[in-house]
Amino acid sequence: MRIAADPYTELRNRLFEAELLFSTGVDGLYGRSDTYQGIADAVDHLMHRWGHDVGATVVHLPPLIARSTFDSTDYIRSFPDLVGSVHVFNGGDRDHVELVRRVSAGGDWPALLEPGEIVLSPAACYSLYPMCAGRLPAGGRYFEVSGYCFRHEPSTDPTRMQAFKMHEIVYVGEPDTAQRHRDDSLARGLSILTDIGLDVTATPANDPFFGRLGAALAAGQLDEGLKFEGVTAICSDDRPTAVMSANCHRDHFGAPFGIETATGAVAHSACVGFGVDRITIALLVRHGLDPSTWPGPVRARLFS
Amino acid sequence: MRIAADPYTELRNRLFEAELLFSTGVDGLYGRSDTYQGIADAVDHLMHRWGHDVGATVVHLPPLIARSTFDSTDYIRSFPDLVGSVHVFNGGDRDHVELVRRVSAGGDWPALLEPGEIVLSPAACYSLYPMCAGRLPAGGRYFEVSGYCFRHEPSTDPTRMQAFKMHEIVYVGEPDTAQRHRDDSLARGLSILTDIGLDVTATPANDPFFGRLGAALAAGQLDEGLKFEGVTAICSDDRPTAVMSANCHRDHFGAPFGIETATGAVAHSACVGFGVDRITIALLVRHGLDPSTWPGPVRARLFS
Repeated sequence: MRIAADPYTELRNRLFEAELLFSTGVDGLYGRSDTYQGIADAVDHLMHRWGHDVGATVVHLPPLIARSTFDSTDYIRSFPDLVGSVHVFNGGDRDHVELVRRVSAGGDWPALLEPGEIVLSPAACYSLYPMCAGRLPAGGRYFEVSGYCFRHEPSTDPTRMQAFKMHEIVYVGEPDTAQRHRDDSLARGLSILTDIGLDVTATPANDPFFGRLGAALAAGQLDEGLKFEGVTAICSDDRPTAVMSANCHRDHFGAPFGIETATGAVAHSACVGFGVDRITIALLVRHGLDPSTWPGPVRARLFS
Repeated sequence: MRIAADPYTELRNRLFEAELLFSTGVDGLYGRSDTYQGIADAVDHLMHRWGHDVGATVVHLPPLIARSTFDSTDYIRSFPDLVGSVHVFNGGDRDHVELVRRVSAGGDWPALLEPGEIVLSPAACYSLYPMCAGRLPAGGRYFEVSGYCFRHEPSTDPTRMQAFKMHEIVYVGEPDTAQRHRDDSLARGLSILTDIGLDVTATPANDPFFGRLGAALAAGQLDEGLKFEGVTAICSDDRPTAVMSANCHRDHFGAPFGIETATGAVAHSACVGFGVDRITIALLVRHGLDPSTWPGPVRARLFS
């Protein structure tokens, strides 16, 4: 009997065989080769030029955020299934002996841990909002943020990683400018991705809100046109993959984090976010697994 | 009353004020400015040249490792207090309602989570060993690995981060070559750090093993000369900070991960690891907070 691999597993196998990605034994958690990382860094650099153009403050973020920040984002209401909470050991010698005994017995040692003050970061921009608390300068501020993010969705689809790099251009300030940032960013993002040879289409979208509580949130987000994605076919023409999204948050972050415009109103925010790993894999699928053979104009845009 | 800040808090305040690091609200978890990241990337590049010289396979690692890998490293026996275990939500709609209720009440929502299949990576090289399982080629293999690591030790000392970048050159193979890699790497590492203007001294060291179980491990490691550190004064001449370490693991990883030499013996391993953030901060303290004013030869070695 021939077992037909699904196209996602097949692509992952090709990336493993070409030693572009390395297995860690967990679906969605991969080592990256130097070639892969070189492409990802070049994609980051495209966004970095954009950040420079709009005078953005650049913040490279660690993969973890404060639990207090996380709680204020209301992420648990929307995406409980994607959360990674960090638990730590606060015990003494006696607890340590029991911990070691349980590891040796293949048993449940994590049950002896307690929630730490940190959570895996689900989106690069979340750590930014507490940094903006208080009064903004007139006209608001732009930020360029990037870092490893985490979403607990083990999958053999290599474009659906649990740990992946996100790069965002964020605006915080006036409502009108936030709305315009979302719209302009969508257009500019599509243009950047088209210029490196990807066939990307804009589409209204909703976040994958969880369960019954989430259905209404998703419908509202679509109705109000708050989120657009740029999607491209990677493994499937019928089910293209989102490689960027442009989002208007309204006061979703300004209110809980106490961010005010120069005139004292609650600040609005908007961001455009790029999935650096998804774009890297889209490029490898589109142009071939050896970047030295990619079309000259694409190489020039990425690597010079 | 004047409150005298300790030198660690004082240094951190200077790095915050210069906007080289950004506070996330948690001690040991910082955003990095583009200037800071540029120095860190240059430090990474020094190690990358080394990896290239020894024909290393380069693997850029995510900040998480498989729990099964973690359990095999015996980390829990040595450093339970530094562990970060990732817990996830496996519940349905009803559990979700309770989760949201607890978040709103400021309550203990993480108690509803379960241990996931992953743990925060405590050392860059750990994910590597399962990739090496089986028979090695004659002469063994070199790897260059880097990535974010985690250690749960909240501190106001900016060189003692919870999330920090580590860069390692690892050898896996023959016992003699492993021992020689440790010794040669110590010398080469000291030379690289001296060349960028740091005053680094080699010293026998032990890991900060936990509690009663750990005291014997620490004594054994020192007696057998398995670990050496390169230390430099950052905040204090009396208590210099380790910025690199060179370690002989003997069969500590080869045995549990089933790694064999070309002749079928249990493989030995050794690594030299660099604390990229500690080296970055040591450079900022040594040469000043504005890299454009650093001595020409240091700039040439790092940025050209």
